[in-house]
Amino acid sequence: MESHRFLFSIFLLVSFICASSSRPVIRLYGDRTRKFLRDDDGLYCESWRFTVETNDAGDWKSIPSRCRQFVEDYMTGDSYRSDSTFVADDSLEFARDVEVAADGHDAWVFDIDETLLSNVPYYQAHGFGLEEFDEKSFDAWVDLADAPALPASLSLYEELQQLGFKIFLLTGRSEHQRNVTETNLRRSGYSNWERLILRSASDQGKPATLYKSERRSELKYEGYRLHGSSGDQWSDLLGFAQAQRSFKLPNPMYYIP
Amino acid sequence: MESHRFLFSIFLLVSFICASSSRPVIRLYGDRTRKFLRDDDGLYCESWRFTVETNDAGDWKSIPSRCRQFVEDYMTGDSYRSDSTFVADDSLEFARDVEVAADGHDAWVFDIDETLLSNVPYYQAHGFGLEEFDEKSFDAWVDLADAPALPASLSLYEELQQLGFKIFLLTGRSEHQRNVTETNLRRSGYSNWERLILRSASDQGKPATLYKSERRSELKYEGYRLHGSSGDQWSDLLGFAQAQRSFKLPNPMYYIP
Repeated sequence: MESHRFLFSIFLLVSFICASSSRPVIRLYGDRTRKFLRDDDGLYCESWRFTVETNDAGDWKSIPSRCRQFVEDYMTGDSYRSDSTFVADDSLEFARDVEVAADGHDAWVFDIDETLLSNVPYYQAHGFGLEEFDEKSFDAWVDLADAPALPASLSLYEELQQLGFKIFLLTGRSEHQRNVTETNLRRSGYSNWERLILRSASDQGKPATLYKSERRSELKYEGYRLHGSSGDQWSDLLGFAQAQRSFKLPNPMYYIP
Repeated sequence: MESHRFLFSIFLLVSFICASSSRPVIRLYGDRTRKFLRDDDGLYCESWRFTVETNDAGDWKSIPSRCRQFVEDYMTGDSYRSDSTFVADDSLEFARDVEVAADGHDAWVFDIDETLLSNVPYYQAHGFGLEEFDEKSFDAWVDLADAPALPASLSLYEELQQLGFKIFLLTGRSEHQRNVTETNLRRSGYSNWERLILRSASDQGKPATLYKSERRSELKYEGYRLHGSSGDQWSDLLGFAQAQRSFKLPNPMYYIP
């Protein structure tokens, strides 16, 4: 009898401990995670990158200063090329399943900067996104027409053309940059796009999401079937008149609303 | 003469290699990246995770077998908790700027599985997503009502309530799981939600994006202002009647279309 009571007390004690510690055990994890986020730049910057690439971060003007080296390592090491290649592979896998019709209206939309062309040489000289965007110096870089192709995107671009897709280039660059943009695209290996769409005077100041949605909308109105859209910014992909599938390329250097 | 012919053959061979590799300077990067993707599980799985979290991967049924350990390490180590915490912080930062009105119609929508509650104990016993989803065994786990809270989400949930948001829980779980779901939520620390919305009989078989968009649409029709929406699946967040801001939580274990 006595041993039963003892066992029951033990049972009660264990139940109490379990009950009262079930929340706090969890809470401790939270504090531990916060400590890591405070002390561990690698962990912090990986998580920051997660929120940037998933669009959780919202609007941001420059990378966290503690992530400068992290972003440089990512952009100039294997990870960026690997991520881009994986995205291109996903895109192509989807594209191969599209039944391309004979009417020439199966289309793919590409953004340009950090999608077809890489501005890493520019950002390398500007802190990999640590410095806030400076339009004047960036435009001077654009005028050089010297941005290299993103290798994975160039391959994808060519394979889409072979599959019969019409390629539309939809960029936030302005109409006055048409010539240098075409020169740069050709110089880095691109050719035979169907149309290059740049911001006209009336598009200036429009959020990218709206400007690009309007242009996609016009393409749809012209009868083009927008199967895929590739861009490094969510503003390349979201909004209205979206493509059937959107492909987000990596870019932890800057954000365009 | 013989040696000239030999040298000429070498010259031709080298010319051929150079000619076919001149674009290939760029291509070489591509090939190198492909080699890394083939040989380096870490790089491969990081890139795979990128495409999953950005929704580039499209529909997928199970994780790549070579990424089983990677996903386990991610889910049970610091990275998952760190990423979740970062997303919760972004959410709260946005929520704090919302002017909450006195009419009680400022709302936030939460998904449940892998958003408020963690099914890691279940997936730990099922290969962290390597096994294809088995509804029967998962439902048996749900019936235990034993899923722990995601610490970062529980904190966010409580802080949103303190800010005056009405909380709507919008889950892919079915109406017949209402009791166990409520029991589980309470047991893991959640309380005072405004409404728990589950799939009714007529919602069975609907894609999650459509079902969730319809329900959000009804909330908007009732006059609720959907400021934020939190979910681990893009089907929690995309579609119509979207919240003003969507917050994608990490989940490399499974995909719900």
